Amino acid sequence: MLQPAALALGIELVVLGQADDDPAATSADAHLTGSMPPTVSDLIALAAGVDALTVEHEVLDLDALATLERAGIVCRPSVDTLARVIDKSTMRATLAAAGLPAPHWAVADDAVALDAVLDDWPAGSSGVVVKATRGGYDGRGVMIADTIEEGRAAGREMLGSGWPVLLEERLDLTAEIAVIVGRQPSGAVATYPPVRTLQADGQCRQVDFPSGLGPAIDVAARQLAERAAVAVDVVGLLAVEMFVVGERLMINELAARPHNSGHLTIEASTTSQFENHLRAVVGLPLGPTDPVVGSATMVNLIGAASGPPGSLTEAVARALTIEPAAHVHLYGKEPRPERKVGHVTLCSADQVDTAVAWRIVEALGGARPDGFGTDRQGVR
Amino acid sequence: MLQPAALALGIELVVLGQADDDPAATSADAHLTGSMPPTVSDLIALAAGVDALTVEHEVLDLDALATLERAGIVCRPSVDTLARVIDKSTMRATLAAAGLPAPHWAVADDAVALDAVLDDWPAGSSGVVVKATRGGYDGRGVMIADTIEEGRAAGREMLGSGWPVLLEERLDLTAEIAVIVGRQPSGAVATYPPVRTLQADGQCRQVDFPSGLGPAIDVAARQLAERAAVAVDVVGLLAVEMFVVGERLMINELAARPHNSGHLTIEASTTSQFENHLRAVVGLPLGPTDPVVGSATMVNLIGAASGPPGSLTEAVARALTIEPAAHVHLYGKEPRPERKVGHVTLCSADQVDTAVAWRIVEALGGARPDGFGTDRQGVR
Repeated sequence: MLQPAALALGIELVVLGQADDDPAATSADAHLTGSMPPTVSDLIALAAGVDALTVEHEVLDLDALATLERAGIVCRPSVDTLARVIDKSTMRATLAAAGLPAPHWAVADDAVALDAVLDDWPAGSSGVVVKATRGGYDGRGVMIADTIEEGRAAGREMLGSGWPVLLEERLDLTAEIAVIVGRQPSGAVATYPPVRTLQADGQCRQVDFPSGLGPAIDVAARQLAERAAVAVDVVGLLAVEMFVVGERLMINELAARPHNSGHLTIEASTTSQFENHLRAVVGLPLGPTDPVVGSATMVNLIGAASGPPGSLTEAVARALTIEPAAHVHLYGKEPRPERKVGHVTLCSADQVDTAVAWRIVEALGGARPDGFGTDRQGVR
Repeated sequence: MLQPAALALGIELVVLGQADDDPAATSADAHLTGSMPPTVSDLIALAAGVDALTVEHEVLDLDALATLERAGIVCRPSVDTLARVIDKSTMRATLAAAGLPAPHWAVADDAVALDAVLDDWPAGSSGVVVKATRGGYDGRGVMIADTIEEGRAAGREMLGSGWPVLLEERLDLTAEIAVIVGRQPSGAVATYPPVRTLQADGQCRQVDFPSGLGPAIDVAARQLAERAAVAVDVVGLLAVEMFVVGERLMINELAARPHNSGHLTIEASTTSQFENHLRAVVGLPLGPTDPVVGSATMVNLIGAASGPPGSLTEAVARALTIEPAAHVHLYGKEPRPERKVGHVTLCSADQVDTAVAWRIVEALGGARPDGFGTDRQGVR
């Protein structure tokens, strides 16, 4: 989704993909595929001559990127920023040092440390969230335990991956919201309005603009996101996912790349998150982030859109018959269980009917989690 | 510019381009290049298996397309529609048969007919517009003569191309406007609001939404465009360029494809002209054409954007510093004199400052015709 903005701005893309028919590779001016992982010298050859290297993924070899950075390749975000964002224990420590609010948390390197942490766990906590400090994605690497003992068992299992585990207090959430900040090399920022995110099984399924949580929370969320962007010294985009507990905000996760919570900016904002990521990375002035619609809802299409082109066109026809104003985005990816293969955005001058968005996703063969598209949606 | 919409809707593009590095060819799923013109059997091989064949150009071999259509390839628009649109004498006859208003016109096959037509030319006419009936584009193939005798000389010269010439009464124009109609195989239409077009040396340089000519003219222009779409039985888009003379509307030109006057629909409309062309051609429901902004101006970037990537990024940086909300669209084409190599669109909730759009075009190395970006712009 970076490619149309890159073409329009005259930015040549050189892409590292996994296969020649990767959607990203086919739309790039040049790409590298072949044996994975690539060697560092392959990467240096690919990156030679580019003005900047960026990422749109989090499963990264930071040691290899550090070697590229030392070889003089401009990484935006920097390897230092990526290290502070990708490793969840470093992320928590960075945010704490900046005085930014988070759930109660602790890191355990081994079973002894795990026991010590859990023996001291806050009384009255409603459970423990156990996270792998590396490699988590879309709910993978996260376990939610109702009791200390379940948390201990989950933590021991997760320690087997070889990385320390992060333990966080389980909270009774009012809502989850996200804010995307674009930040230039100069430090100038452009911050998108907060959106509400609704998850099922730890995976984001729906994003709503506006957040519906009122101006006080929205203003506080934008400020918190900008402070997080400074704390990790990002260049490019930083997506800041937050918990809302009553009137309080706490940072849940960070991602230094275009983010699923920003896909609705393609239609709903003056400048899309993809264009602003590119603008920040190549040092162009950031575009305005103000909305051009009254409301927007994005729903992910997960594990669907299979079948031959003929039947795909029929599915798209069924979807657009439900609502011709729907913005259907298929990614051209092979469907796999739980894989995001597209999304649908609806915009309105006043209020989007989210039930319609879910009917469209179902017409495209996507799954609708229980309660979504109804008044009960997003209840954990 | 069709490609992002095709990707999003899951439509595979197969493209006939002139070279492997054609912008259209590099973004297609498959393409044909090589010796030009291609043979009809090459074309049939390329088109085999596609659901529909469409065009985004007017220099077409209609005989070759007719052979493809007879071979069972679904052409949208049909060859019959293309014949009625591309040959200017057939276009004039088709519109006249449908009772649609046009300037006084006549066709001359040879010098004798030319003399007969001009000897009968309306008294009081302010001149003669002499047009090649085939192959005209961006002001090429059009000569505007102040007197009958200049018209005779121009007509004789143009007859040398081998095609009949079309002679039209020269009018004192109040303005020029354009309306784009999307039309499905079923006959259902989606019509964009009229835009005002401003030309220099016969080439469109600026497009403004709204037209500024008031609701009566806008309503009449939409109706006229829809009648023209029925008259030529288009499937896909039809761009209808019209003259405004006082309160009267007359059809100037037709184009059965996405059109320069519709580029601002990318940002200014719920559905872009490119997405609606694809939707019509593959038989998907048409998207709404209502504006999402209060006003928009598109300015063409002509013969510029040259130089190495580094200096291009610097030019884009200068352009976006003037107005970060500008939508810059570079086409990745080699610059040539008078060639459109990009465009810039500005949108506003109230009124676009067109002078800013022209400053941006100049920052990108584009030419600004005399008077454009000032209060005198578009004066013929």
